[in-house]
Parts: sequence; C-alpha cells; structure tokens
Amino acid sequence: MAKLIVLYRKPANPDAFNDYYFNIHVPIAKQIPGITAYEVSEGPVATPQGDSSWHLVATLGFATMDALQAAFASPEGQRAAADLANFADGGAELLIVNERSI
Amino acid sequence: MAKLIVLYRKPANPDAFNDYYFNIHVPIAKQIPGITAYEVSEGPVATPQGDSSWHLVATLGFATMDALQAAFASPEGQRAAADLANFADGGAELLIVNERSI
Repeated sequence: MAKLIVLYRKPANPDAFNDYYFNIHVPIAKQIPGITAYEVSEGPVATPQGDSSWHLVATLGFATMDALQAAFASPEGQRAAADLANFADGGAELLIVNERSI
Repeated sequence: MAKLIVLYRKPANPDAFNDYYFNIHVPIAKQIPGITAYEVSEGPVATPQGDSSWHLVATLGFATMDALQAAFASPEGQRAAADLANFADGGAELLIVNERSI
C-alpha cells in the first residue's frame, strides 16, 4: 500500500497543536481524495531510550502510488499541505513510501 | 495498534544494505515474539519534493504497547536491535507509537 507518513516534531505548544490538529487539520486532510486509511499516534512518540523529539506521527494510506500522487496534486491535497504552516511550528517531515508485508 | 517504526538513513552502499537487510536482518527480526505485522518500504523513500535522505522504512506491529515493550526487552528483540550496527551505517531512528484509526 502507498503511504504518506507525516512526522511532526515537538511544537512550541503541544496542547495548541493537538487542538488545531484534530479539530481543524484532520477535517481538512480527510477531504483529500483516495484516502483508504488514516492513522495517528496517540500519546507520546517514544524511542527505545525514552523521550523523542517527535510529537505525532500520522499515516495516510492510498490504494496505489498513482492514487497518492494524484491526491497530493489535488486542490484538497494542496490545501492540507498548505495548512501545515498554520500549526506545525516544530517542523514536519513527509515521507512517501510503498509498503509491502513481509 | 502499537508500532515500532524504524527509519533508516541512506547507507554508504544501498545494495549491500538491502542484501544484508532482507537476507540476514529480517530473519533475525522475525524471531521477535509478538509481531503481528511487518511491513517494509519498497523502492525509494520519497518526499513531496522528490528525493529523501531516508533509505527504508520498516513498520512492526504488536497487539499492545505492553507486547511491544516485552518484545523489545526479549533476547530476540535485543539481538535484532544489536544487529543494526552490522548494516545501518547511515543511522537509524526507532519510533514507538500507539496508532489508532481516525
């Protein structure tokens, strides 16, 4: 499955980030065409050593890489991407992967 | 679902990395108790801008966070973690997340 993994670094204000993310960003992102799965991390993002510099991980699934690329190029995809600037003040990294089960 | 996301940075020799990863590391990692899903990225890890500094993403699923923590603490988990030093010369980042569908 083609996946867009969005890794958010710790923001200045985690509560404000979460409030914006779940109440405003997710409804915007859910309008992106072709999403087949949408998962977000709950609670802290940890490492085996403990704390992490990452705040939240979101994984959006698409049937194919073509569907993902089309979604990203769509007006809804562009709107969701542009919205990151409104809350992801710690930075975000977007990874596009084609995952298979092994 | 509790997930261990392993992000590998580009190694010095991608072909040698892939050879070791799929032929040696994965069989070691598959011995970790409690894995319910194991996905790896196929082909390049991209970003919306194109190329990325990441080489491969692996996602290991566990029924619960307790199962993940127990797996990590097990001899098999420790063996898999120690094996990273044998091939992940570009570095690796391990993220532990509890993901839920939204």
